[in-house]
Amino acid sequence: MPPLPASGQFVHGVHRFPIRVYFEDTDLTGVVFHANYLRYMERARSDMLALAGVDQLEVMTGGNGYFAVADLQISYRRPAKLGDQLEVCSRVVRVRAAATLSSQQVWRGDELLTDATVTAAWLDRNGRPQRQPAEWAARFETIRREAEAEM
Amino acid sequence: MPPLPASGQFVHGVHRFPIRVYFEDTDLTGVVFHANYLRYMERARSDMLALAGVDQLEVMTGGNGYFAVADLQISYRRPAKLGDQLEVCSRVVRVRAAATLSSQQVWRGDELLTDATVTAAWLDRNGRPQRQPAEWAARFETIRREAEAEM
Amino acid sequence: MPPLPASGQFVHGVHRFPIRVYFEDTDLTGVVFHANYLRYMERARSDMLALAGVDQLEVMTGGNGYFAVADLQISYRRPAKLGDQLEVCSRVVRVRAAATLSSQQVWRGDELLTDATVTAAWLDRNGRPQRQPAEWAARFETIRREAEAEM
Amino acid sequence: MPPLPASGQFVHGVHRFPIRVYFEDTDLTGVVFHANYLRYMERARSDMLALAGVDQLEVMTGGNGYFAVADLQISYRRPAKLGDQLEVCSRVVRVRAAATLSSQQVWRGDELLTDATVTAAWLDRNGRPQRQPAEWAARFETIRREAEAEM
Repeated sequence: MPPLPASGQFVHGVHRFPIRVYFEDTDLTGVVFHANYLRYMERARSDMLALAGVDQLEVMTGGNGYFAVADLQISYRRPAKLGDQLEVCSRVVRVRAAATLSSQQVWRGDELLTDATVTAAWLDRNGRPQRQPAEWAARFETIRREAEAEM
Repeated sequence: MPPLPASGQFVHGVHRFPIRVYFEDTDLTGVVFHANYLRYMERARSDMLALAGVDQLEVMTGGNGYFAVADLQISYRRPAKLGDQLEVCSRVVRVRAAATLSSQQVWRGDELLTDATVTAAWLDRNGRPQRQPAEWAARFETIRREAEAEM
Repeated sequence: MPPLPASGQFVHGVHRFPIRVYFEDTDLTGVVFHANYLRYMERARSDMLALAGVDQLEVMTGGNGYFAVADLQISYRRPAKLGDQLEVCSRVVRVRAAATLSSQQVWRGDELLTDATVTAAWLDRNGRPQRQPAEWAARFETIRREAEAEM
Repeated sequence: MPPLPASGQFVHGVHRFPIRVYFEDTDLTGVVFHANYLRYMERARSDMLALAGVDQLEVMTGGNGYFAVADLQISYRRPAKLGDQLEVCSRVVRVRAAATLSSQQVWRGDELLTDATVTAAWLDRNGRPQRQPAEWAARFETIRREAEAEM
C-alpha cells in the first residue's frame, strides 16, 4: 500500500497537523519566507474542515459558496529551517453567523514559531458574506467548546 | 498618475517581457528556485496573449475554454539573484490545431539564464483538447512568421 | 531598449507600486489566494527600500543582517481577479530602534482591496534583533514625516 | 504523540511519496497550476535524498555544495484537483559524475497525471558543477539498479 499524505487529528478539540519544510518554502535568508506560514495554516484549516465533515470542493462545485480569509494577524517569533518537522495547532475560538475565527500556532517541538488568529468568512458564489450552514456552525461550536474546556 | 505594471512588447515578432527578482522567488541556496522560472514564463505568455488580443479571463468566464501547459522542456544555465532585472523573450514556434508551441528564454542582459519550449493546449471547459479559434490561430501564425523572418 | 520591470515611486511620502494579477496568484475560487497579497506587499517594501537607498542583497552578502517580518495584520475587503492592475500604497508609520512599521494597502483604482500593517525587524546574521543603521533610520523617519504631513 | 509529516518510502528501488492538493496549489481554472508539480517533485526528491542518507541542509551549511535542477522535461496528461491524494513515484535513471537523472511520475491512484525527467546537478558553493561525492554516487547507483531490475 502506498504511503498516505499527512493528515491532522483532533486532540481535545485542538487540531494538530504536521508539516515538513522544503526548498520551495525558504528564501535566500535561509529560513521559511513569511508568507509561506499562511500556506501552512491554510492546509491545516482545510484538513480541520475535512475532519469536521465539510467537503469544500463539493460545496464549491455545487455553487454554494466558499470560505475566504477576511482577517488575519500573525506574529513571527522564531524561524523554521529546511527539513524542520513542524506542527500547526489550530483551535476554533469563535463561531459567528457568517464567519469562524481560529487561533493557529506553528510549533517545532515545544518551540513556538508563529502565532496567528484567522477569520474565515463564508461567502456565496458572488463573494458576498452569507450565513454559515447551521449544521456546520454547530460542529464548529462543538470543537470550540472542546478546546475551551481544555484550556 | 500611478505607475503601471510591467508590460511586454513585440519586437520583430519576439515578445520581450521584464521581470525583477524578489525574495519570494529565491530559496536558501541564494538564487531563484527552479520552479519559479515557470511562473516568469507564464506571466510572459499571458502578456503575449493579451497583446495578441486574447482576453483569457473573458474567454474562461464565458465557459469557452482555457490554455493549459501540456508539455515543457527547460534548461537552467545560470542562476538569477535577488534584485536582478530579467527579460523573458518569447516567440511562437509552431501553431497546431489545438495547441501552440513557444520558445522562451530568460535573459539577464546578454547572459542566457534559462531556455525553454512550452506547448500550451487549448482545452474546453471539461479539460479536453479543442481546436483553437481560427482568428487566434491566424494571429499566432502571423507572430510566428514575423519572428521566423528575423532569425 | 528592452522594457523595464515595474518600479514604484514616492508621491508625498507614500510609495506607490504597481502589480498585475497572473494565473499563479489565483486559486480555484477564481480570485487571488490570500497569502499572495503578502508577496505583493513584500515586493512593494523591497522596492521602497531600494528607492530609499538600501541595497538588501549587498547588506546580506556582507553578512550585516536582513529584514524579517515580525508582525503582520491584514484585512481582506474585496478580491482581486486575473489581469487586474493593482497598486500597493505603502507608508512608514513608525521607526523604532530595531524595527520599522509600515501601513500597506492594495488598491484597484479607487477600490480598497486589502489593508495591512507590517512590522519589519532588522536582524543580525543569526536572526537576533539589532539596532537599525542610524542612516537608514533617519531616511525612514524622513519618509514617515513626509507621509504624515499629507494626511 | 503528534502526527508526523508525510514521508516517502522505497519499494523495489522506486521512491513513493504522498501529496495532498491544497488551495495554494490550484489556480482559477480549478486545477493544479502547472508549475506546482515541480514543487511536488522537488519534495519527493528531497525526501528520496534524505532516505538515501544525504542531509542537504548540513552539506549546504558546511559550504560543500548543493543540488540544482539543470534540465527538466515534463508532460501534463491529466489535471489534479483540490483534495486529491497523489503519489510521486521517482526512480534514479542515470548517475553521472556531476549530476543524477531521475524519472518522476505523479499518479492519482492508477491514473498518470504528469511524467517528468529531471537532471539534478551537484554544484559547489559558487554554483559550478563538481563531482558528486563517491559515497553518494554509489548509493544512487544502487537505487538505480534496484529500480532497473524491477522494470
